[in-house]
Amino acid sequence: MTLAASAADDDDFGPVRLRIALALDYDVAEPGCDFIFNIHAAHTERQHVVTETLTLSQPLQPAVETDPATHNRYLRVQARPGPLQVAYSATIDLRHHVADPGTIAEVQIARLPLNVLSYVYPSRYCQSDRLHRFAMREFGHLWQGYGRVQAIHDWVLERTAFTSNSSTSDTSAIDTLLGTVGVCRDFAHLMIALCRAVNIPARFTTGIDYGADPALGPPDFHAYVEVYLGDRWYLFDPSGTAIPMGFVRFGTGRDAADVAFATIFGSVTSRAPRIGIESIAGDDGRQITPRHVPHALSTDG
Amino acid sequence: MTLAASAADDDDFGPVRLRIALALDYDVAEPGCDFIFNIHAAHTERQHVVTETLTLSQPLQPAVETDPATHNRYLRVQARPGPLQVAYSATIDLRHHVADPGTIAEVQIARLPLNVLSYVYPSRYCQSDRLHRFAMREFGHLWQGYGRVQAIHDWVLERTAFTSNSSTSDTSAIDTLLGTVGVCRDFAHLMIALCRAVNIPARFTTGIDYGADPALGPPDFHAYVEVYLGDRWYLFDPSGTAIPMGFVRFGTGRDAADVAFATIFGSVTSRAPRIGIESIAGDDGRQITPRHVPHALSTDG
Amino acid sequence: MTLAASAADDDDFGPVRLRIALALDYDVAEPGCDFIFNIHAAHTERQHVVTETLTLSQPLQPAVETDPATHNRYLRVQARPGPLQVAYSATIDLRHHVADPGTIAEVQIARLPLNVLSYVYPSRYCQSDRLHRFAMREFGHLWQGYGRVQAIHDWVLERTAFTSNSSTSDTSAIDTLLGTVGVCRDFAHLMIALCRAVNIPARFTTGIDYGADPALGPPDFHAYVEVYLGDRWYLFDPSGTAIPMGFVRFGTGRDAADVAFATIFGSVTSRAPRIGIESIAGDDGRQITPRHVPHALSTDG
Amino acid sequence: MTLAASAADDDDFGPVRLRIALALDYDVAEPGCDFIFNIHAAHTERQHVVTETLTLSQPLQPAVETDPATHNRYLRVQARPGPLQVAYSATIDLRHHVADPGTIAEVQIARLPLNVLSYVYPSRYCQSDRLHRFAMREFGHLWQGYGRVQAIHDWVLERTAFTSNSSTSDTSAIDTLLGTVGVCRDFAHLMIALCRAVNIPARFTTGIDYGADPALGPPDFHAYVEVYLGDRWYLFDPSGTAIPMGFVRFGTGRDAADVAFATIFGSVTSRAPRIGIESIAGDDGRQITPRHVPHALSTDG
Repeated sequence: MTLAASAADDDDFGPVRLRIALALDYDVAEPGCDFIFNIHAAHTERQHVVTETLTLSQPLQPAVETDPATHNRYLRVQARPGPLQVAYSATIDLRHHVADPGTIAEVQIARLPLNVLSYVYPSRYCQSDRLHRFAMREFGHLWQGYGRVQAIHDWVLERTAFTSNSSTSDTSAIDTLLGTVGVCRDFAHLMIALCRAVNIPARFTTGIDYGADPALGPPDFHAYVEVYLGDRWYLFDPSGTAIPMGFVRFGTGRDAADVAFATIFGSVTSRAPRIGIESIAGDDGRQITPRHVPHALSTDG
Repeated sequence: MTLAASAADDDDFGPVRLRIALALDYDVAEPGCDFIFNIHAAHTERQHVVTETLTLSQPLQPAVETDPATHNRYLRVQARPGPLQVAYSATIDLRHHVADPGTIAEVQIARLPLNVLSYVYPSRYCQSDRLHRFAMREFGHLWQGYGRVQAIHDWVLERTAFTSNSSTSDTSAIDTLLGTVGVCRDFAHLMIALCRAVNIPARFTTGIDYGADPALGPPDFHAYVEVYLGDRWYLFDPSGTAIPMGFVRFGTGRDAADVAFATIFGSVTSRAPRIGIESIAGDDGRQITPRHVPHALSTDG
Repeated sequence: MTLAASAADDDDFGPVRLRIALALDYDVAEPGCDFIFNIHAAHTERQHVVTETLTLSQPLQPAVETDPATHNRYLRVQARPGPLQVAYSATIDLRHHVADPGTIAEVQIARLPLNVLSYVYPSRYCQSDRLHRFAMREFGHLWQGYGRVQAIHDWVLERTAFTSNSSTSDTSAIDTLLGTVGVCRDFAHLMIALCRAVNIPARFTTGIDYGADPALGPPDFHAYVEVYLGDRWYLFDPSGTAIPMGFVRFGTGRDAADVAFATIFGSVTSRAPRIGIESIAGDDGRQITPRHVPHALSTDG
Repeated sequence: MTLAASAADDDDFGPVRLRIALALDYDVAEPGCDFIFNIHAAHTERQHVVTETLTLSQPLQPAVETDPATHNRYLRVQARPGPLQVAYSATIDLRHHVADPGTIAEVQIARLPLNVLSYVYPSRYCQSDRLHRFAMREFGHLWQGYGRVQAIHDWVLERTAFTSNSSTSDTSAIDTLLGTVGVCRDFAHLMIALCRAVNIPARFTTGIDYGADPALGPPDFHAYVEVYLGDRWYLFDPSGTAIPMGFVRFGTGRDAADVAFATIFGSVTSRAPRIGIESIAGDDGRQITPRHVPHALSTDG
């Protein structure tokens, strides 16, 4: 099969180099407001941060720490009253693991790595325990493997309408299943919950995506899904709004409760983030622009 | 103050040695059922496993792995059809950190260690996000510190009636707040949710407890709460049914979704676990029997 | 078509005569416990109570009142401490309205009788508002009429497993949709919610049914569904456990919140009700035993 | 006591005459959209509609029907595509029943009129069954009577912040209890649920109110609460935003599911309603302007 053949040749598409920039804008109303930002591109084996810059409008001592389990990078600041602007820009190289979907199997529970296990359990927004029988009825009879996960992806995409402002911070996978509307975060929660409900580990990933449809509004943070299959985490975008090959990873977690791009403790007003992403040429002068491909892609492991 | 004085003297009560034994009993209906057990006492700096024995009635190769982040020890087996008995016994030494509650402060979000942060976020059974305003109204005005957490503990204990079989695997902190009944797991979830709702990290711990009231039924697994204060996790038992000084830790997690003593994938029937715990003399011949004390206790860090 | 022809002949199957008996058994723990029973067969144009007897073991003054809107008959007593037995028996004649399903249309909202309108709105256990988009996706495209309601009936029956003790007094239509298990009450709530979600009036009916499968346990109260189509309420049994032609109506309401067979205010323990039903010959000596028929049946209007 | 004396004198304050006007504005996108309006002032023994006018911008045949159980008046129209304006104005006389709160008792379940009973049961937005133990803990020990209901009213008012746009059509009493914010409808649902949870009948009433604080925005429909005490339904306004003496009743029901001012079936866009209310002199030339009074007021029965 041609997919397998081409994947065997070089295991990837060559590095995809992306240039990202984001600007956040707050008004801090009282002293001592704490911010936890997760707006740094993660360093992983397959996502290389070539350069990056962080600028804060207040004279703060930014501390950036990396969580060893997830590679999430957290910036914590305690801001003073008044305006606070945060600007981050970076150049990122992605070197995808590329595989033929037809060759990727599910992993028996007994063989899952320990650090994957917690992603089979239910979480705040992904109540997979309540969906077990429902999901087994829909997907339990399917051939196990990447194709079954693709079927869950397609089911979510087909039944759910992307509608801005249709959900709140309380909206869970069950709400989305019943309401049949949502934004990228809601699509992701529903797909994750259904995967876990049939005992397939799935997790929530956030970042910035290349190639979003401008009809959906100005560029924004994106949430997508990773599913553990074979021996690694594969990318899925159940909202169908982005190009998986153009994802830049910021945060990885169980669901949106874990990986807000900003968690704020205190009285703060905020404006919409401004976000940009572009594809540029790599060190070798070649420009690999993200595009839809039929392959299974992973940027983890 | 006398508490501080006595704590300053030796930092603990001397080692508490406990002997525990548990027996689990299953009928496996089909080939290939996976079990993930979390029934091994955790090894921590303050909980020392002196000896332990594991016996399985089937000729399986038990693999026991330790999660580096939580110290949880997982036994995974894939069982054959037929009966399966699992027996575990161990001798444990606990050497508590002991502190005067009046000296223990809360930790600002900006200063929390990174590996503590995720315990501020909502989880499957502890929807702290939905309880933020409710909790701030009840507890937001209290003096910050151990005393505030004790107030949350007392509030949960006072408003909730311990009632066997009053909850299901779907019961969450909100259900318990409204229903005002539950078992130890439910008390723990409610206390955790209320702590997180006022931005205090709290987590769910399971194990076996010494000194449970026999009126509550035969000895069973116990769930309790740890709250991050000062520079470590302190023990709380909002169900009021056990003696915190007699807790043997098996699992630590966000809530019950993370730390079931047994997670079973497949068609299996089970009987009630048989559990025993006794206080015995330590290596120095002294027997320190767990008792209620007015001090703050920690077995972590 | 033969169905229409036979229905045109006599509009019904001749009277179905049933003999029912029920016995309820309580221990009243404190003075002044109020009971509201709905255990009298309703008098309607098509359900005739030939004879009936009520016996109470305490010397109470039973007051039986009939709600003019629903025909529900309520027995209210304030019991003394000690045992209370309530026995009711009756002989009932049912004279069904019989119609060919293919001829029965839905009714436009603008043309619904005023006393039917409230059965389009959501209720405690039938959150049709939350299921609107879900139901429109599943059933919105179907040909409007009895057949669409039959499709909803079949969908519920096919996806839900009848399982004793699988639900509680808190279980709603959404829980049943997700959990895919329930008892007759849960099947009824789900079918009602889905009908209302596509703007078809549906209501909850309780009583005793002839012909229940003994494998489901001893005879019990039954809950079924009525849907307003054409110019009357037609019977549906989404649990598939009974013979609609053998339903004896006690109560009619929006959902189970309205028509418990017993609502008890105070401290009372109860035992399982004992219930009997048999088919007997009518005044003309003919015995019409309830059986499954392909016709649409109504006992209302 | 002076309250009792003054109430004994004339049983009311003299008729309160109010002039109301409302205008609704829609764009109908497709043929055959059905509207059910409940925008006519109810005719009751104590609310007299002196004059009224209805104007529709489309040449429709408006049918207005009165529900005999609730006195709700429903206007149903099937609109054509294009703009639709609905204007209603009326002059209303209110003649309140006035009583001394201290003399008003609760009614035993056994003595409640049959047509009041259903208002003890849970409904879509008022899940009193789930709040029974919670409410008994808060209010179960209080002296039974008007004062206990006033305590529930005060509890809701004190704990809940009036916040525009803080709730959706899915928000229930439990959400409001936990979230501690809402609009008038949410305050009403929570008070109703808590009353029913301690077995006191309570219902949801909509209409227009005199004297709303302009700081809350332009005049709007209002939702308030009626509680059955003594021998009639007494008015409560748990949102604290209006003057109960100035309520004009449109609809009465179990909760907001029953008495939307407009229920629309089809694709329609709408603008904010324009509403006016003023106090004018009555037939005798006296003008009684609604004001806050310490008496218990009823406009029902």
